[in-house]
Amino acid sequence: MGVRPHVVVVGGGFGGLAVARGLDKQPVEVTVIDRQNFTTFQPLLYQVATSGLNAADVAHPIRGLFHRQRNLRVQRGEVTAIDWDRRAVRLADEREVPFDHLVLAVGAVATYFGVPGADEHATPLYTLDDAVQVRNHVLERFEAADADPGLVDEGELNFVVVGGGPTGVETAGALAELFSVVFRRDYPTLGVGRARVVLVEAQDALLGPFHPSSQQAALDTLRARQVEVRLDEMVAEVTPDHVRFASGEELPTRTVIWAAGVRAHPLAAALGLPTARGGRVEVGDDLRVAGHDRVWAVGDVAAPRDHRGGGPLPQLAPVAMQSGGHVARQIRRLLEGRPTQPFRFHDRGTMATIGRRSAVAELPGRVRLSGTPAWFAWLGLHLLYVAGLRNRLSVLLNWFWAYVTWDRGPRIIFGGGSDGGERPAPP
Amino acid sequence: MGVRPHVVVVGGGFGGLAVARGLDKQPVEVTVIDRQNFTTFQPLLYQVATSGLNAADVAHPIRGLFHRQRNLRVQRGEVTAIDWDRRAVRLADEREVPFDHLVLAVGAVATYFGVPGADEHATPLYTLDDAVQVRNHVLERFEAADADPGLVDEGELNFVVVGGGPTGVETAGALAELFSVVFRRDYPTLGVGRARVVLVEAQDALLGPFHPSSQQAALDTLRARQVEVRLDEMVAEVTPDHVRFASGEELPTRTVIWAAGVRAHPLAAALGLPTARGGRVEVGDDLRVAGHDRVWAVGDVAAPRDHRGGGPLPQLAPVAMQSGGHVARQIRRLLEGRPTQPFRFHDRGTMATIGRRSAVAELPGRVRLSGTPAWFAWLGLHLLYVAGLRNRLSVLLNWFWAYVTWDRGPRIIFGGGSDGGERPAPP
Repeated sequence: MGVRPHVVVVGGGFGGLAVARGLDKQPVEVTVIDRQNFTTFQPLLYQVATSGLNAADVAHPIRGLFHRQRNLRVQRGEVTAIDWDRRAVRLADEREVPFDHLVLAVGAVATYFGVPGADEHATPLYTLDDAVQVRNHVLERFEAADADPGLVDEGELNFVVVGGGPTGVETAGALAELFSVVFRRDYPTLGVGRARVVLVEAQDALLGPFHPSSQQAALDTLRARQVEVRLDEMVAEVTPDHVRFASGEELPTRTVIWAAGVRAHPLAAALGLPTARGGRVEVGDDLRVAGHDRVWAVGDVAAPRDHRGGGPLPQLAPVAMQSGGHVARQIRRLLEGRPTQPFRFHDRGTMATIGRRSAVAELPGRVRLSGTPAWFAWLGLHLLYVAGLRNRLSVLLNWFWAYVTWDRGPRIIFGGGSDGGERPAPP
Repeated sequence: MGVRPHVVVVGGGFGGLAVARGLDKQPVEVTVIDRQNFTTFQPLLYQVATSGLNAADVAHPIRGLFHRQRNLRVQRGEVTAIDWDRRAVRLADEREVPFDHLVLAVGAVATYFGVPGADEHATPLYTLDDAVQVRNHVLERFEAADADPGLVDEGELNFVVVGGGPTGVETAGALAELFSVVFRRDYPTLGVGRARVVLVEAQDALLGPFHPSSQQAALDTLRARQVEVRLDEMVAEVTPDHVRFASGEELPTRTVIWAAGVRAHPLAAALGLPTARGGRVEVGDDLRVAGHDRVWAVGDVAAPRDHRGGGPLPQLAPVAMQSGGHVARQIRRLLEGRPTQPFRFHDRGTMATIGRRSAVAELPGRVRLSGTPAWFAWLGLHLLYVAGLRNRLSVLLNWFWAYVTWDRGPRIIFGGGSDGGERPAPP
């Protein structure tokens, strides 16, 4: 790597890639390490899970993003330990990668708040594999019910989404749309109207951080689309064939999608870094890990403070991207002998889509949109951020197709996340 | 199913779907049974294997093809037996599907001609899972070599394609192009020029049934693109880390793609149907199975005779489609009390593509194309046949993208066919 300082970025999500990009043309060598050879556009995973997009549409090969960045190399590998004395990252295959600066950007994993059975029988929506597993599982339920309609009475077509944040709202809305628009034609004899989508939220409103008027708009839209929204309710237990709610009621179901929250990737704690609530790495104002001069944390794995006061910033893509850019700038400043600056998050708004021509959006300056204008705003923003022009065109094609034809393409049961959910063959 | 005769089609490939389509608006009930919920456009699997197309681009949900065909239903299931007395198909989950006419269209599987180790260590290119497995495996070889360049000397980047027919020629050409155009930029420090593509053919020419001038064009083009073509050579043994040729030479490699031939799906023999060479079902001139009045066989599983004389027709998509259409017409004739007619295959030409703007095509009337005109002919014909308009647009997008940018999108290591080819983690 020559004599230039070596910046090692662990994790190729929004945060890690923002660090890497921010160091283009700087007098450093950059190595991005990820377990996978692609980056995932997580905000659209729910579309893969509901047969709206191909898996490949939301994945982009990391190497392909950096063809023109000459100071960067990509390594596929899994970090298992850090040798602090020798300042080197150790990978699962025993390779060692020395660093001058280390940026931890390994993201998060689902958290189940200790709900019995959730770990085994619920599926989160955080990785591409999760999304494909949900897609295959949902399609398999309809195939099973089509082969044996009696299963519908046993809950085969009851789908429970846990968590009324953006992911839960988007997933529930997209499922309802998939059933009523596409599956109605795919399974004409099944009586798809008997399929139920149940969205469970522990608070008394959906979309917690949104304005009450947006919350109400989301609730009204989902209910109009036949989603059963249960507020002030929690899932107390998940089994292979039902969920039990905190209220005591049991609902037969074979499908529980867990969108109720994430905690930091366990690697942070395993490396011995100081962690706060949710396992997130404690960072100073400049995003350096507490007690470490050359170690930074960005994205969902970190707990950056909100400079406007209050608790840590939420685990969202914009925070990851902005914190990554900040760390790149701070490393540049340190190399130039200048002091670091505190991170300031610029909130450019939040949005959530509920289905065909329906979304809620909250933009700076207290601008609140709902319905069709919000949907177009959501569409444009997400297209803008999908990595790679080709993926953008492909996403556009799939969306345009779904919009014009009320059809969806990629509802194939294939690959990755098959959960073996088929009924067992006879002995 | 009422009183209308019930036609059960087993297999949703080119042949089976042609039967089903041919029975639209006829006074029959049709059931299509397939183990998967999608049909695969097999002629483009090599593009998935070489990161040119998404897996979903060559797969289309079977149900989506028949929204408007009211006399048809689709069942996902695996046929394990036939009860001839009760005239019913039995599925793996013990469901029974009674039939008046049965069409067997279950396709083929790879055949290894008894070459030791080929079954375990070579991958065919017949199913979508095969193609994704090859894609992941190839990408993993480059990742491994990039992490440890010493592996190149041990054959990590040697890729052996067995069989010089269209699939082998197309795969070898596409691999060479993928390496020289895309991987050269993805792995700038690796020296991708050290990667080798070796195409092995037992005969003294590629593309057996083509005219010698087309054969020579294919050979010249592949060699110009650095593919090592070995004619009059065979693979005698495949191991995890090398192949041994009939000539005695050994070549270190971890990748053997088997495009050397197929045999009929073993279900045909398991059902006790009369089979000929390659396990193909013996059919009469009208494509009924010998000795059965109401059982037909089409596509790769069958051995229809060439009405122009000679042996059975080749196991190619056009034969499957035409034989499927023929069976639909014969069933209609029988229902109308008319006698069946013999099947006549109309050869509309064959083509094979070798890479960017290069192909060979042989059309009726002894028209032979090569180079760019053949490539455009190939492009248009395949686009025409890809099932579903949306897939067609997506394929077009991927091709156009690859053509304009010399880049490829879907080179992600993900899903289905991962072969666990990563080097083992330390104990």
